[in-house]
Amino acid sequence: MNPDHREQIQRLNKIQGQVKGIVRMIEEKRYCIDILNQIKAIDKALQKVSRGVMERHLNHCVQGAIQAKDQAQSSEKIAEIMKLLDTQK
Amino acid sequence: MNPDHREQIQRLNKIQGQVKGIVRMIEEKRYCIDILNQIKAIDKALQKVSRGVMERHLNHCVQGAIQAKDQAQSSEKIAEIMKLLDTQK
Amino acid sequence: MNPDHREQIQRLNKIQGQVKGIVRMIEEKRYCIDILNQIKAIDKALQKVSRGVMERHLNHCVQGAIQAKDQAQSSEKIAEIMKLLDTQK
Amino acid sequence: MNPDHREQIQRLNKIQGQVKGIVRMIEEKRYCIDILNQIKAIDKALQKVSRGVMERHLNHCVQGAIQAKDQAQSSEKIAEIMKLLDTQK
Repeated sequence: MNPDHREQIQRLNKIQGQVKGIVRMIEEKRYCIDILNQIKAIDKALQKVSRGVMERHLNHCVQGAIQAKDQAQSSEKIAEIMKLLDTQK
Repeated sequence: MNPDHREQIQRLNKIQGQVKGIVRMIEEKRYCIDILNQIKAIDKALQKVSRGVMERHLNHCVQGAIQAKDQAQSSEKIAEIMKLLDTQK
Repeated sequence: MNPDHREQIQRLNKIQGQVKGIVRMIEEKRYCIDILNQIKAIDKALQKVSRGVMERHLNHCVQGAIQAKDQAQSSEKIAEIMKLLDTQK
Repeated sequence: MNPDHREQIQRLNKIQGQVKGIVRMIEEKRYCIDILNQIKAIDKALQKVSRGVMERHLNHCVQGAIQAKDQAQSSEKIAEIMKLLDTQK
């Protein structure tokens, strides 16, 4: 398997453990602010996976379409990215 | 168990399934944009858990401290929330 | 005037100058990434104003309502904050 | 002037007016939540300008570099975008 994929999967496995950790925190009635900080940590970890996928996408799929001078494909790729960014916020 | 907690735990269990789904999407080399949209869906689901915990926190812990007219406690509670919001972005 | 208000107004005046600066950058056809970084700086400055107003709100209006043991008012205040946070993202 | 630039400048002029409006709201001691909602509206308007500049950047500068098959330039363009997105959050 691609080493980049392996890294993402390791991150995602860690995130799964963190989500399970939140369940435990709620069951143990831990302090809300601690739970919220832990959720924020998961959010950041997910963000990192997302950035990795995006970088790969720009470097492969998008560059490929543009280099192939396939104008329709290139425009579609850019429209997809803009749509994703728009709904990000 | 508190019905509010039960709802949060159900959400977190669903999130765990979604994270596992991303692993599968990467293994199956699915299209990057589809993976990114799926990560965004998890992000929104986590956000909902976070809002629920925050609402509970404001309605219980924070109101409690303020009603008890414990000024030091109230100020600390508000400082905690501000710190959390500051690092949110 | 309240020193806290004075500080916010100074920040907002600076932000107005920064927005005018972006107009100039566009007119001078400056590099897109430089413009985007400058917009991000404005966004952060606005965020600071927003945090300041929120902190004041929690420390004054919200604490006031809760201390007055006005349950309807307190609940409304907390609902307002939650609504604001929900649409933030 | 480019019609796209004209549109962005109109938006920025409107944003300047909105920032001035916040100053007035603070001077008139308007309700905090109303001020916060107004700041959020400015934030969204700025976001729109930012998205417009980004879209133009992808369609012109980035496509140009990739089509020219200038690998160093293309990689730099993509790195710039990733850096911008990383600090966005």
